Amino acid sequence: MGNPSKVLTCRGFRWQGVERKAYKEGRVPYKAVTRQTLLGEGPGEDALQFITRYFEVQPGGYSTLELHQHPHAVVVLRGTGKLVLGDETHEIAPYDCVYVAPGTKHQFRATGTAPLGFLCVVDRVRDRPQVLG
Amino acid sequence: MGNPSKVLTCRGFRWQGVERKAYKEGRVPYKAVTRQTLLGEGPGEDALQFITRYFEVQPGGYSTLELHQHPHAVVVLRGTGKLVLGDETHEIAPYDCVYVAPGTKHQFRATGTAPLGFLCVVDRVRDRPQVLG
Repeated sequence: MGNPSKVLTCRGFRWQGVERKAYKEGRVPYKAVTRQTLLGEGPGEDALQFITRYFEVQPGGYSTLELHQHPHAVVVLRGTGKLVLGDETHEIAPYDCVYVAPGTKHQFRATGTAPLGFLCVVDRVRDRPQVLG
Repeated sequence: MGNPSKVLTCRGFRWQGVERKAYKEGRVPYKAVTRQTLLGEGPGEDALQFITRYFEVQPGGYSTLELHQHPHAVVVLRGTGKLVLGDETHEIAPYDCVYVAPGTKHQFRATGTAPLGFLCVVDRVRDRPQVLG
């Protein structure tokens, strides 16, 4: 194949050619969260050892309270919310950057009137989350 | 040490506790570019196999035209500009996402009236760029 380099144009927090999917498969507790995998799982992207995902939580929604051994690097793109991070809760707003260290419980909650959207980068090869509730 | 998880609060595209540095060391061709390393090089961040950086190019500025074997995952956060990507030039705007595949020449240019700011994630262990001009 040719060079797989590309620009994924964004309109309204939807990226060209990227499917918006359910946040997780299966019966795990979360509410009103979607996932778009921007880079790392497409054809020609095998060189990426990390996966770039965009999650969006609608107002009142929340991600699963969970922990795992792989770390997260997160950058908020839109909205405001609360982040459970270990034993603390933080307010988060656009462009705030979050490090979720291995084994740290975490949950994102959209507590404002707008969707909370954030990038979350993870290793391609990673352990499965342990769901806490 | 304790749990190194953290929130880096952002104000005006400066992140709490993060130093704004010159884009590159040495005499390589670029203009009006700064770098902030958000995650991956700080204490307690060894678990991250990738580094999250934020680059900002002032109007009229440009990054080095270069190529390397490590890939880039880029998400634009502010401003508009042009991206040289292989043999093509693309217009880029906030939230556009870019994959720079191995061995692909690339250059970011801030062609608008505002700074062009973007996240760029790379492997922790990576080859050095080959500067093209």
